[in-house]
Amino acid sequence: MATINRKITLAARPVGFPKVSDFDLVYSPLPLPAAGAVLVRSVYLSLDPHMRRGMNAAESDTPSVAIGAIMPGRGVAFVVSSDDPAFQAGDAVVGMFGWQELAVVQGRQLRKLDLHLAPLSTALGVLGMPGLTAFFGLLDVCNPRPGETVMVSGAAGAVGALVGQIAKIRGCRVVGSAGSEAKISWLLDELGFDAAFNYKTVGDLGGELEVGCPDGIDVYFDTVGGAITDAVLQQLQAKARVSVCGQASQDNLMEPEKGLRWLDQLVIKQAKLQGFLVSGYVERFPEGLAQLAGWLDQGKLKYWESITQGIESAPQAFIGMLRGINHGKQLVQLSDP
Amino acid sequence: MATINRKITLAARPVGFPKVSDFDLVYSPLPLPAAGAVLVRSVYLSLDPHMRRGMNAAESDTPSVAIGAIMPGRGVAFVVSSDDPAFQAGDAVVGMFGWQELAVVQGRQLRKLDLHLAPLSTALGVLGMPGLTAFFGLLDVCNPRPGETVMVSGAAGAVGALVGQIAKIRGCRVVGSAGSEAKISWLLDELGFDAAFNYKTVGDLGGELEVGCPDGIDVYFDTVGGAITDAVLQQLQAKARVSVCGQASQDNLMEPEKGLRWLDQLVIKQAKLQGFLVSGYVERFPEGLAQLAGWLDQGKLKYWESITQGIESAPQAFIGMLRGINHGKQLVQLSDP
Repeated sequence: MATINRKITLAARPVGFPKVSDFDLVYSPLPLPAAGAVLVRSVYLSLDPHMRRGMNAAESDTPSVAIGAIMPGRGVAFVVSSDDPAFQAGDAVVGMFGWQELAVVQGRQLRKLDLHLAPLSTALGVLGMPGLTAFFGLLDVCNPRPGETVMVSGAAGAVGALVGQIAKIRGCRVVGSAGSEAKISWLLDELGFDAAFNYKTVGDLGGELEVGCPDGIDVYFDTVGGAITDAVLQQLQAKARVSVCGQASQDNLMEPEKGLRWLDQLVIKQAKLQGFLVSGYVERFPEGLAQLAGWLDQGKLKYWESITQGIESAPQAFIGMLRGINHGKQLVQLSDP
Repeated sequence: MATINRKITLAARPVGFPKVSDFDLVYSPLPLPAAGAVLVRSVYLSLDPHMRRGMNAAESDTPSVAIGAIMPGRGVAFVVSSDDPAFQAGDAVVGMFGWQELAVVQGRQLRKLDLHLAPLSTALGVLGMPGLTAFFGLLDVCNPRPGETVMVSGAAGAVGALVGQIAKIRGCRVVGSAGSEAKISWLLDELGFDAAFNYKTVGDLGGELEVGCPDGIDVYFDTVGGAITDAVLQQLQAKARVSVCGQASQDNLMEPEKGLRWLDQLVIKQAKLQGFLVSGYVERFPEGLAQLAGWLDQGKLKYWESITQGIESAPQAFIGMLRGINHGKQLVQLSDP
């Protein structure tokens, strides 16, 4: 264990896409646990699209990070020492540890993990916030029925890939968009999507959607927004449901983008569109985790992780994720599992 | 009773706002009732914004009218003669009679009206489709709670004026936008709106909304779309509900308009947006009509009608309504009530 803690702080507010120079790598002394607190050594740090909004000064769903403050983030860790009787050295835990190697936290902020149940990293993916986001955002918001067509944007992302697989479990036709040929192959060959296309290279999004969704779109799970969403909303079926999870295509724009006005389509199709945050479902997390763990155990959910090594790799990994370089869940490994 | 029927047919598909020359006034012989049919003499014809969409060749919620065909429309009428034992000469009825003075219809397409209950014309307004649209579109889609702020665009229209009053009955703060100073005075002084502004003359829609809705907007009922909707969606409260009834500002555009992308706001606010058609509530019409009639009887709902005289006035009255000249419900009187 290092006796010096290393962490990443916010150096400057990004203009457009973040740059590595918007972050600082800071060395600081080993934190001294307060009475009742728990010292943990991080194993994996989760990188998530919403963190980009936290780098702005403006209010959003993610609290604005102060310049010079540590970047907040969820991670899995092992307890090093604990002044809280509920935790012992060696316990595996998940919590908000920030972009750093060591963290001092209160026990009430931690959830213990069972290492026999699933690999540690899944607590940040399929059995964590991405899994719960896909689960409630698809099933609770949209309630897809067998035979319906479900379209997913950002389908190869941590959330999107799970949305598509859960929709397949429900018996739906599943169509996805993603940004590379490798991702499209993965969606079609590994995850069982019925159709998928590379939104960066197809000339005509609408035409591609007509081919993939010959009966129209009953459910749309949107993590991307922008042009793909404009196109999807022209092809809704009557009584369609749209779950809006994020708008990744808009988060790094230097000027707000204008787009199609499509509210007339929602009227004609009597369609519902719902923005949601997974935090709105906190009381139902145990229900979601139990179902996701069951599917994982039955081999019905596959997942993919992109893992970089060392806290110093976090800024570049984060930027790469915002640009869509990763497959599935983006993690930074900070110590041995 | 005229022995010659006069009707309005579609002469040409409008480009942008309709012109009078897009319609023809046609004289035709008295229709001969088929066996089992009912001959009616129209008293009032209802003019409705969705009729504009029916003038286009493209599919929408309103069937496309063929060139040369009669303009469809709802009206109230008296039965002249009936070969259906359920109807007698002199009965007051509501149904789809089209833009014409006389019509031959089947009895199953008619609903009898009680002349003692409310004036005949209310069957086309507060106790008709506009009333039901306001009732279900506000209460079922948005479920406003006492103390919440409800914003209505097109607030002086047939539907909007009822939405605002129903929201007041529910104990909400009600704010509206409309397009003339006379309409604003009517909303504030007659209908009891808490705030209202002329969207055509205020420089800063967002600033005006902040003044009218100091606690943000919990419920938005949209009949207009475009710039006012862009501005409203920036000021939603958490868990806001948006009911999209129509997009009148977009119906007469010659080129599709681009606008703000605001889906990020729906995510952050966990807001729901629902497009709806009143036809989706047909099973619940009796419930809605009973409640609306009760409120009308108790003096809790006021309405306003703009009435022009004679079938030949229908095209100009329709164009005026699309341009927002009318207050409240636009009717054409075709014979004596």
